Amino acid sequence: MKIVILGCGRVGATLATQLDKAGHHVVVIDNNSDSFHRLNSDFHGETIIGSGVDEDVLRRAGLAEADAFAAVTNGDNRNIMASQIAKEIFHVRKVVCRIYDPIRQSTYNELGIEAICPTIVGADLMFHALMNTK
Amino acid sequence: MKIVILGCGRVGATLATQLDKAGHHVVVIDNNSDSFHRLNSDFHGETIIGSGVDEDVLRRAGLAEADAFAAVTNGDNRNIMASQIAKEIFHVRKVVCRIYDPIRQSTYNELGIEAICPTIVGADLMFHALMNTK
Repeated sequence: MKIVILGCGRVGATLATQLDKAGHHVVVIDNNSDSFHRLNSDFHGETIIGSGVDEDVLRRAGLAEADAFAAVTNGDNRNIMASQIAKEIFHVRKVVCRIYDPIRQSTYNELGIEAICPTIVGADLMFHALMNTK
Repeated sequence: MKIVILGCGRVGATLATQLDKAGHHVVVIDNNSDSFHRLNSDFHGETIIGSGVDEDVLRRAGLAEADAFAAVTNGDNRNIMASQIAKEIFHVRKVVCRIYDPIRQSTYNELGIEAICPTIVGADLMFHALMNTK
């Protein structure tokens, strides 16, 4: 599969490494070239410097031929905008987006964008860890 | 159970609300009083303004009588330090700590501090969402 990842922070870099190791064709976009240092030294994929809400950048990253797109920058709005472009303009089949704000997450899920909310997931994990008192 | 939460960001506030609703006695510490606005209006717990690495603040929060402690500020070092104080000085039975850096997480798990790493969890969730192509 060809997968484009927007954002090479900790989660983006970990995800890119995992997908690359699993044999997928990975392209990572970030507006800061320093971020690519987070990628493993044996990363086989491509890196593109630029804004993920710029259609030209997304086209250069090969979004038109991508099977999947993941938006994991630190900005909810940027992730949402990029996901909408990926879905509506490039017709990417699978679009997954990180949204920190729980309220926006449920709204976007209703609009058909698959959104993962680390806030809810994190709080749930902490809750269960705390309740499991040894 | 009496549970002290350090950090009233999105995860801290969500966790505090969940635990409060479940009938626990919750105390939330944050060094910024504005953060407490994230708590539900019907939150029954206590709020304490101060630094979570200050022993006096933790004592005021009732850590000596707490059954559990969760450190969920945005700083890994702060969470680690506060967790160590909770464990070593206040002998809190259950201490859970958020650590963004995957390498430090595994180190601290080995040292007996239960650490949850949202980076690894987030990347795993994205990976499985992307692979589940409809």
